[in-house]
Amino acid sequence: MQRIADEALKYAKPFLSQGHTAGYIPELSKVDPNRLGLYIASNDGQCYKSGDFDTKFTLQSISKTVSLMLAVMDRGQDYVFNKVGMEPTGDAFNSIIKLETVKLHKPLNPMINAGAIAIDSLISGNTPEDKFRHLAGFYRKVFNNEQLNYNKEVYLSEKATGFRNRALANFMKDAGVLEGDVDEVVDLYFKQCSFEVDCKDIAFLGALLANDGISPSTGKEIVPKKVSRLVKTFMVTCGMYDASGEFAVKVGLPSKSGVGGGIVAVVPGTMGIGVFGPALDDKGNSVGGIKILEYLSEKLGLSIF
Amino acid sequence: MQRIADEALKYAKPFLSQGHTAGYIPELSKVDPNRLGLYIASNDGQCYKSGDFDTKFTLQSISKTVSLMLAVMDRGQDYVFNKVGMEPTGDAFNSIIKLETVKLHKPLNPMINAGAIAIDSLISGNTPEDKFRHLAGFYRKVFNNEQLNYNKEVYLSEKATGFRNRALANFMKDAGVLEGDVDEVVDLYFKQCSFEVDCKDIAFLGALLANDGISPSTGKEIVPKKVSRLVKTFMVTCGMYDASGEFAVKVGLPSKSGVGGGIVAVVPGTMGIGVFGPALDDKGNSVGGIKILEYLSEKLGLSIF
Amino acid sequence: MQRIADEALKYAKPFLSQGHTAGYIPELSKVDPNRLGLYIASNDGQCYKSGDFDTKFTLQSISKTVSLMLAVMDRGQDYVFNKVGMEPTGDAFNSIIKLETVKLHKPLNPMINAGAIAIDSLISGNTPEDKFRHLAGFYRKVFNNEQLNYNKEVYLSEKATGFRNRALANFMKDAGVLEGDVDEVVDLYFKQCSFEVDCKDIAFLGALLANDGISPSTGKEIVPKKVSRLVKTFMVTCGMYDASGEFAVKVGLPSKSGVGGGIVAVVPGTMGIGVFGPALDDKGNSVGGIKILEYLSEKLGLSIF
Amino acid sequence: MQRIADEALKYAKPFLSQGHTAGYIPELSKVDPNRLGLYIASNDGQCYKSGDFDTKFTLQSISKTVSLMLAVMDRGQDYVFNKVGMEPTGDAFNSIIKLETVKLHKPLNPMINAGAIAIDSLISGNTPEDKFRHLAGFYRKVFNNEQLNYNKEVYLSEKATGFRNRALANFMKDAGVLEGDVDEVVDLYFKQCSFEVDCKDIAFLGALLANDGISPSTGKEIVPKKVSRLVKTFMVTCGMYDASGEFAVKVGLPSKSGVGGGIVAVVPGTMGIGVFGPALDDKGNSVGGIKILEYLSEKLGLSIF
Repeated sequence: MQRIADEALKYAKPFLSQGHTAGYIPELSKVDPNRLGLYIASNDGQCYKSGDFDTKFTLQSISKTVSLMLAVMDRGQDYVFNKVGMEPTGDAFNSIIKLETVKLHKPLNPMINAGAIAIDSLISGNTPEDKFRHLAGFYRKVFNNEQLNYNKEVYLSEKATGFRNRALANFMKDAGVLEGDVDEVVDLYFKQCSFEVDCKDIAFLGALLANDGISPSTGKEIVPKKVSRLVKTFMVTCGMYDASGEFAVKVGLPSKSGVGGGIVAVVPGTMGIGVFGPALDDKGNSVGGIKILEYLSEKLGLSIF
Repeated sequence: MQRIADEALKYAKPFLSQGHTAGYIPELSKVDPNRLGLYIASNDGQCYKSGDFDTKFTLQSISKTVSLMLAVMDRGQDYVFNKVGMEPTGDAFNSIIKLETVKLHKPLNPMINAGAIAIDSLISGNTPEDKFRHLAGFYRKVFNNEQLNYNKEVYLSEKATGFRNRALANFMKDAGVLEGDVDEVVDLYFKQCSFEVDCKDIAFLGALLANDGISPSTGKEIVPKKVSRLVKTFMVTCGMYDASGEFAVKVGLPSKSGVGGGIVAVVPGTMGIGVFGPALDDKGNSVGGIKILEYLSEKLGLSIF
Repeated sequence: MQRIADEALKYAKPFLSQGHTAGYIPELSKVDPNRLGLYIASNDGQCYKSGDFDTKFTLQSISKTVSLMLAVMDRGQDYVFNKVGMEPTGDAFNSIIKLETVKLHKPLNPMINAGAIAIDSLISGNTPEDKFRHLAGFYRKVFNNEQLNYNKEVYLSEKATGFRNRALANFMKDAGVLEGDVDEVVDLYFKQCSFEVDCKDIAFLGALLANDGISPSTGKEIVPKKVSRLVKTFMVTCGMYDASGEFAVKVGLPSKSGVGGGIVAVVPGTMGIGVFGPALDDKGNSVGGIKILEYLSEKLGLSIF
Repeated sequence: MQRIADEALKYAKPFLSQGHTAGYIPELSKVDPNRLGLYIASNDGQCYKSGDFDTKFTLQSISKTVSLMLAVMDRGQDYVFNKVGMEPTGDAFNSIIKLETVKLHKPLNPMINAGAIAIDSLISGNTPEDKFRHLAGFYRKVFNNEQLNYNKEVYLSEKATGFRNRALANFMKDAGVLEGDVDEVVDLYFKQCSFEVDCKDIAFLGALLANDGISPSTGKEIVPKKVSRLVKTFMVTCGMYDASGEFAVKVGLPSKSGVGGGIVAVVPGTMGIGVFGPALDDKGNSVGGIKILEYLSEKLGLSIF
């Protein structure tokens, strides 16, 4: 297994030159595009690591899975999906078109930016500080990392340039979809995107979901099984932006990527995989990360289909 | 002529019940939907008035014509139309779709909300206060009314609920189309929409444009002829929201309407017409105002086509 | 198991009144909306049936899965997906918008009408008759039914009214996506949609896919494992029209529905399920069929997530 | 005047290299892109000509204005605009998107392909031959040319490649907007697009409209004044594809262009102008033709605004 992990990294390396770091968030564009790392956490306690597995990066869209779980635990599935749809979309993650054309103006799913921002408006808490504390506490549990916090430079960079996300939020506020104050909701979203992790952290999240929400290290339930299944479903149908369909065919694992370069993948019942490679393709997915997962899925026969 | 003015009002009255006051700006929905007024200012100094010609209402989208003239005078036609397109659109005035689908993300024209907000980002001035002072000064000239000011209640109502306009502005900021600070630009836009006028004020604007930019009262040039022609062109191709084509067929006069219930119409070389009727059709145009203009155009053979 | 099958039917019955038979194909609207049937074919040879399991209905969109497999076997996966995309879409099955807005004008996936028509243009054969013979032969194998044929009345009804499908085909022909003659391709598509089956037939298809392409009755490979996996992936991401995401959350089985009222579902490694209920919801899915599958998935814990 | 005509041609010549002949109709791409001609027919009987004024070209979209007049004369304005809208659109002439997104699926106006095809379904006649005879008779009158006929090669070329127009027609048939047989309607449309004219022919059409529908040569009414005004209105709001707004600003004359390279322009009360230059810009308008009209409008102060 350690050998296969190393092979996967070696296989993926040459593809890095096809990608670029995220250009639209200034702070993210400064990262070294040649980084590539892998961490596998099996549910029986083994771990395998390779490359830049301990380099820090920000969660970005991977956070969408975590906040979705929290919102469902806070408000219940019915309430949440009254505000956000369940359908995959062929549009880009930051597209605003469907918000105008779709009846009720609901975002199509919680994995596109509009949906994730609407989800953040549902996090419990009386004040912005309350909400952040509540959210950060949950993030620390699902990543099994008490030190987890957001990167201030990245957060400020997102805040200074996040006009498209503000457009989405204001549009939803106008349509009556978004609860609460627009600026506060968007601010919480910028913070969650800026949480700093490494491959080990997100591999733990993968293992947690592989184990139906029960911590593989402590045996305690962190997320109800039903919520764990729900989020895995969205990871399959819309976890890889508008390349989710192709990824399902080629890899076949519930996964979620972020423009920080990370991808978390779940092998149900078996293990979690965390990969990191900040060189992105034109859909916003880690070029090297996808190649690593293709290699592992093929070699180990991991596809759920 | 006075007789025809009275007949037009009488003809239009029964149609008022087909409309409703603007629902999406709370302050506007409080207006009495049965109001209807008309003021005709001929270029040779005559005036004819009928009904509620001296009731105050807010400019709303009529202001788009005035700020367009000011921006072109401030920056030049080329600079302005580098930021905003010239094409009519079949979409609603507050649609955001085309901003995403169109190359360069330029708003299609200065008469839709997105375009008008982009235009406001081009008004000269070092500070928001400077810009407003500059803009208000020009408005007072083109409406020939030194007392002209914005209605605070309406302005605050727009500001409190203008999320769709903020969505448009943030989208354009993200796309690099909008200059300056989003909140400041939108604030200026809310203020210009809230300027309070009556039929006489807007009839003067119509007469000014009918007279190629030269004040019919003083004989002084307020707007260069070229700019006057430019704005009349947009009034024909996109002055009546997504009912501009039908209005061109049925009335055939350069006109601009606002959801405050006003419509300014220009009879080139001859006169300006100001109508007011806050009951709107589903496109956002004054039901009674359109009927008055249909009557006048038909009776007096005013169509430019 | 038989008891659970009967219970599922009983549970689903009351929901039928919420649906309607397909209105847009005249011949389909004549069917009795109260029909409801279920057939379960387990991979170890057991079968369970309930209700109108032997009522005949037409495949409609279920055929998209079968022709996709044939095209991939005829032309190879790379060739096929050079013509058709792999991404789910939030649009309706007969939408034409994305064909215009998406780069290259490729249909987004093989499960929407545009994609399925493009797939039909890839079926091998020198003449239309050849192609149909080739296609029908394959259909008879995957449904394990040598008598399988298309219903002439339904076929003629589709042909007489299938203008939207012709619009899609002509659009793709213009864009260079569709190979061959437009009318011939569309004719083949109308025929495959009109193949007449019952619950047993489609349950066999489900069992075949559950068994990775190997016939559970003869042990012979009918479809390569890789192709079987491919089609199951599309059944998850886009098998239930623009309700696929919600179905994945609530049922979690690779499935494909048709407006004839049928749904085929796959329980990987275990069994195939065929349900029939011509009362459809507003997305075009069988109301009763979905309820049966929700019941079975919940009771038997079948979700793959 | 003759001097200004020659100057206009000279002014426009150098711009020809910026354009290309229509690529999507094979027969049209064979034309010499350096051709440029001009014919001015004044209502008092004078004529001025310059360059390739007697080169033959096909009407293409210019025909939309003529068939619109005929349909309104055949069926009445209300009936026609029950099928086709009156609004300009920012979309390309062959766009299909709005047909799906707009309520009732009506084409937005009679100057886009969808609208023009719908208009052709309204031409009177019991058989396709009847309809063509009726249409051709009217065309011969409005172009004052008894020899007028369609070019068989161009017609066959359009027929062989007109898949996008068939897509539009089938979509409208499905939506209940198009009357009659799809293939017959599209065939009539291909024929009218292929009518062969020269600058003199279309200048006569311009003069006819400038003269409110009364033939400047015979004094007889060919088109009722109301219909003449109607078509001029559409020429202003949507006569130059999705560059109509810019053309209104820069030229300000009711005009209609075709991808054959012709443009007809109307100077109300004064004259008709026919220009021809097959090098097109990316909107499908004659590069040289627009430059000629800009020159004439500027020099002679022709803008109606």
